[in-house]
Amino acid sequence: MAKVMVIGAGPAGLRAAESLARFGLDVLLVEQAPYLGGALARHRYGGLMPYFDSGPQVLKAMTAVVTDHARVTVCTESQVGRVESTDGGFQVELMGQTATEEHVQAVILATGFTHFDPRRDAKYGYGLFPDVITGAELEEQMAAGPVHRVSNGAIPESVAFIYCVGSRDRQVGNTYCSRVCCAVSTKQGIELRQQLPQARIVMFYMDVRTYGLWEDQLYWRAQEEAGIVYVKGRVAEITQHDGRPLLKGEDTLIRGPFEWEFDLVVLATGMEPAAGTAALAAKFGVEREPHGFLRQAKPMVSAAITNRPGVFVAGAASGPKTVEDSVMEGDVAAMAVLEHLGVKATP
Amino acid sequence: MAKVMVIGAGPAGLRAAESLARFGLDVLLVEQAPYLGGALARHRYGGLMPYFDSGPQVLKAMTAVVTDHARVTVCTESQVGRVESTDGGFQVELMGQTATEEHVQAVILATGFTHFDPRRDAKYGYGLFPDVITGAELEEQMAAGPVHRVSNGAIPESVAFIYCVGSRDRQVGNTYCSRVCCAVSTKQGIELRQQLPQARIVMFYMDVRTYGLWEDQLYWRAQEEAGIVYVKGRVAEITQHDGRPLLKGEDTLIRGPFEWEFDLVVLATGMEPAAGTAALAAKFGVEREPHGFLRQAKPMVSAAITNRPGVFVAGAASGPKTVEDSVMEGDVAAMAVLEHLGVKATP
Repeated sequence: MAKVMVIGAGPAGLRAAESLARFGLDVLLVEQAPYLGGALARHRYGGLMPYFDSGPQVLKAMTAVVTDHARVTVCTESQVGRVESTDGGFQVELMGQTATEEHVQAVILATGFTHFDPRRDAKYGYGLFPDVITGAELEEQMAAGPVHRVSNGAIPESVAFIYCVGSRDRQVGNTYCSRVCCAVSTKQGIELRQQLPQARIVMFYMDVRTYGLWEDQLYWRAQEEAGIVYVKGRVAEITQHDGRPLLKGEDTLIRGPFEWEFDLVVLATGMEPAAGTAALAAKFGVEREPHGFLRQAKPMVSAAITNRPGVFVAGAASGPKTVEDSVMEGDVAAMAVLEHLGVKATP
Repeated sequence: MAKVMVIGAGPAGLRAAESLARFGLDVLLVEQAPYLGGALARHRYGGLMPYFDSGPQVLKAMTAVVTDHARVTVCTESQVGRVESTDGGFQVELMGQTATEEHVQAVILATGFTHFDPRRDAKYGYGLFPDVITGAELEEQMAAGPVHRVSNGAIPESVAFIYCVGSRDRQVGNTYCSRVCCAVSTKQGIELRQQLPQARIVMFYMDVRTYGLWEDQLYWRAQEEAGIVYVKGRVAEITQHDGRPLLKGEDTLIRGPFEWEFDLVVLATGMEPAAGTAALAAKFGVEREPHGFLRQAKPMVSAAITNRPGVFVAGAASGPKTVEDSVMEGDVAAMAVLEHLGVKATP
């Protein structure tokens, strides 16, 4: 039976591996980290949008299927070296604890994303002021215990979220929207309200993009049940005053400037292609779109098709995605592989 | 080989049928309309977001694969009658020109959506004022020839788009966001600019939800290249003045009321579950979510899984979707069917 290499073991890669293996194909699942689960594992997401599924449980279910499956060989702490085209596929050098050569008939690139590093946008004071953290760091705090100010360990009485950090921003080079941060921040606000019944929680946004069924599930609920305040406005600068972050900006609805202190500030950092995406794309001859994500060549036929026959894409490698969307694309990529290989069902 | 019934021949159903048939399964594709293609055919979409693919070409490619495939039996002008569970699947009465009984091992519900009927929200004057049209009617105008005022056939010198008609609106009973209308309207604005180089084109919005890679591809391009104006504001009422629609509302950014005449007004109507969704759900024992769409029971595993084993969902039947998302879900549903049936690949 054909052998397929899936590169990246986040939700998209895990689902692709599972679907191919279930079908009877052999799968080599390659992951550079020492663990499976991608960003879900890396940041220990507690609750997942939009239905507050338990992140650890989803992660456990996703990984168990793959690690238990006889047809899936998991190679963690492994990276792709040299790639060569062959008659029936690709010869891929795999560099882990030892170097091996693998011959596979098709490849799925599911290399995911990394969060924008807010140190690249000095106005937020990230790295300088301890109580300015990222959304991923907030998830890690919530997973580990009560949310607290990093500066002194105190429980915050006021929390600000700043949307579109590293997204929709020509100055930092990312003109796209990261698609999930509005909803993730809203979800975090609702979770935070459980821990902090009295705190002031304010969202600073450009547009609230809780699209589709997230609208009432998250956005309305945040306002009507959790008492979260949404302010349309751009934060121009964060400084520090009496040991607390001070936000300066303009409220575009009341058309006036504001200066507002908070105990804790959460930056909703956007998604960028994972480090190494460009190099991997070059090795496999796959084109990238203008923002550096892998280009979907025929999205009206299959989201998984790239310009290179035999090489497919799934998940956030082709642009910002939710966990659910990444799981979907895992299946779509598996289906595209089956089509490419001309696999038929046993009668 | 197993036989699968796919109900609904829009992008999701067409793709599901294609992927299952390619694999060797027999597919019965059931469609109540006399044509294939769903909303894509019904409204003759000219250009598709976000890359302005030709709607007719996409439609032709999607339908050709299915109509040419020996394993797909297409039943147009057909509806589902009585449904009974059997040992290995479902016994379904099919009512077309004649009534037949079909036995299938699995079912995919891909029944899509209908647009919100703006007659249900009297403030827009739709049906009363001829120059207030829907986005779908604008597509039909663009497909047929130059865009014109319905009242007198004149080329419009000013066009207003009103977002969120029938969406995000508790008063009309639809609290969800329809997910695509911001981007579809923006795409239409860009297309309109080609035809109307001098016209004033204004978008009235709540939030501009051109999420992900649509942001610069559509929203920035509309503003920077096509000179389209975006006004954050709710239109409270449309009346008519000197034979032209008169919009009254409040600009929430400048915090002032406006009265503004336009030659043509386009209502970006949202998506609702297709007529008959409730009845079909009841026949198959499939649950609906609070807005009446079919409920995805395990979106973190597969978008296609419903509460009922053997019955799957794809496309806008489970909530507002783009064409691309619907095509993806066609593959996801096909994969879920293969899993459900325990289909394996031939070695």
